[in-house]
Amino acid sequence: MGQGHFADRLLETVERKRSHVVVGFDPDFALLPPALVDAHPPDRYVTEEERKVAAYREFLSPLAEALAAVAVAVKIQIAYFEALGSLGYRLYEELVGLCQELGYLVIADVKRGDIGSTAEAYAVAHLDKVGADAVTVNPYFGADGLEPFLRRARQDGKGLFVLVKTSNPGSADLQDQVLESGEPLYLRVAALVNKWGEATEGRLGYRTVGAVVGGTHPVQGEALRTAMPRVPFLVPGYGAQGATADAVARMFDAAGRGAVVNSARAILYAYRSRPGLGWLEAAVEEATAMKEALWRAAGRV
Amino acid sequence: MGQGHFADRLLETVERKRSHVVVGFDPDFALLPPALVDAHPPDRYVTEEERKVAAYREFLSPLAEALAAVAVAVKIQIAYFEALGSLGYRLYEELVGLCQELGYLVIADVKRGDIGSTAEAYAVAHLDKVGADAVTVNPYFGADGLEPFLRRARQDGKGLFVLVKTSNPGSADLQDQVLESGEPLYLRVAALVNKWGEATEGRLGYRTVGAVVGGTHPVQGEALRTAMPRVPFLVPGYGAQGATADAVARMFDAAGRGAVVNSARAILYAYRSRPGLGWLEAAVEEATAMKEALWRAAGRV
Repeated sequence: MGQGHFADRLLETVERKRSHVVVGFDPDFALLPPALVDAHPPDRYVTEEERKVAAYREFLSPLAEALAAVAVAVKIQIAYFEALGSLGYRLYEELVGLCQELGYLVIADVKRGDIGSTAEAYAVAHLDKVGADAVTVNPYFGADGLEPFLRRARQDGKGLFVLVKTSNPGSADLQDQVLESGEPLYLRVAALVNKWGEATEGRLGYRTVGAVVGGTHPVQGEALRTAMPRVPFLVPGYGAQGATADAVARMFDAAGRGAVVNSARAILYAYRSRPGLGWLEAAVEEATAMKEALWRAAGRV
Repeated sequence: MGQGHFADRLLETVERKRSHVVVGFDPDFALLPPALVDAHPPDRYVTEEERKVAAYREFLSPLAEALAAVAVAVKIQIAYFEALGSLGYRLYEELVGLCQELGYLVIADVKRGDIGSTAEAYAVAHLDKVGADAVTVNPYFGADGLEPFLRRARQDGKGLFVLVKTSNPGSADLQDQVLESGEPLYLRVAALVNKWGEATEGRLGYRTVGAVVGGTHPVQGEALRTAMPRVPFLVPGYGAQGATADAVARMFDAAGRGAVVNSARAILYAYRSRPGLGWLEAAVEEATAMKEALWRAAGRV
């Protein structure tokens, strides 16, 4: 499949850009720069969805261009696009293509999970048609529900990130349940991720079947790094959710590799805490500061 | 919220139509009636997606009309619409409205789950904007990830069905993990569903926070019925996946109420096993046979 092994592409991009930063596209109309909102007055659009889609496009397209040297990947949170209906869905499709042209890997943050035949339709939707490089998936259905994604990760150069330990407080409700073996459920899921990704290592030693491990749980994250030594981590929770560079550094391997770290709101809306800068400049400055903090915390300087 | 309590509406519709049948809209182009495919030749459309969307519309709209007297709800499996991109998404939006006009309750089978802020966007998308009566949700994120759906179930007359024990074989991987208390994880999820739905009972005694319990697991289903006495069940797995009327009857309460049962492929593509009947007639015949078998199995005749 032309494009090559997903984890190799991810790790090579990290080295080339000297960055572990993933920028999260979580557009929120209430947080857009006021000048940009003013440039899209309601009376110019037939529906509120049209208006928001136009504003999101003019917000995210220049951001994608401006951040291309700083971030290795874009994680598109599809929920914010679905909230604008089919027009929003079309913008999601557009942005995947735009970001790939700009040299990003694109992670479609869809967190889908279903029985096998339905999961196949989701894999067609997001990996084949929309053409994202990787997707996030939910493990609750078990192996057969993930098989369509796993097949594309083994054969088509695609990647997936299985939810293991999520960044939110409520993650304890299920994920921390203690099994009769004495281990928490998330470690059992980690063992399954190891099994599902067997023999998918690329040249650089990492597998195409990755894990989502919240940066807000550094102790569990360190245990999960040990439990899944060959599994690339997608680490959400940096910035607005409170995870620091030192906390997420525990999810890197001894060489400071093997994980990428997502920040959405703190980068997108950086203009709010950096008065005097334009919103694009503020986002670049925030992402650059994050990139440097992570590179240092990874012991790479 | 005008439309009233979700579980009351569901149970009243069951009584009025004397049916526990939910018809699943899982369109699969390869299984469409050949005459309908022939009526949509590729050279009439610019893209394959346009062609399939047109064929799905001409398949599902008359089916919705023909089945309105037999089925209480339509469960729209969004994956098959996402697989056709933004055009497919638009058809999903259209069908929700059409089915509601025909008197169905509409369950958007989206199985979403995410952190709170993202879950809010999903709830806006599917309950507020598309306006489905209920959604299916994934419990892996825990309480805060479900809160936006729970709020709408408490305040807006909406329903939700939390995945508890799914119909696929791989459901054992996580859902059957035995906890230190000796109970399987799915029973722990059932306890959470009880907690999340507290004090949401309607006039008829059932709550707005329901559960998905696969009809392919009758023994576990019976245990789950006992564990969640006030929780409406959405039971998939009937028909093509192998669950029988007697098996799913264990998910009804003592009065033969409290559960609705989904069948998709067996109804939609009934023409394949009923030669001599048109595809609409075959679907109605299949759904009617299912309705009668379930009514009997529920001890209602």
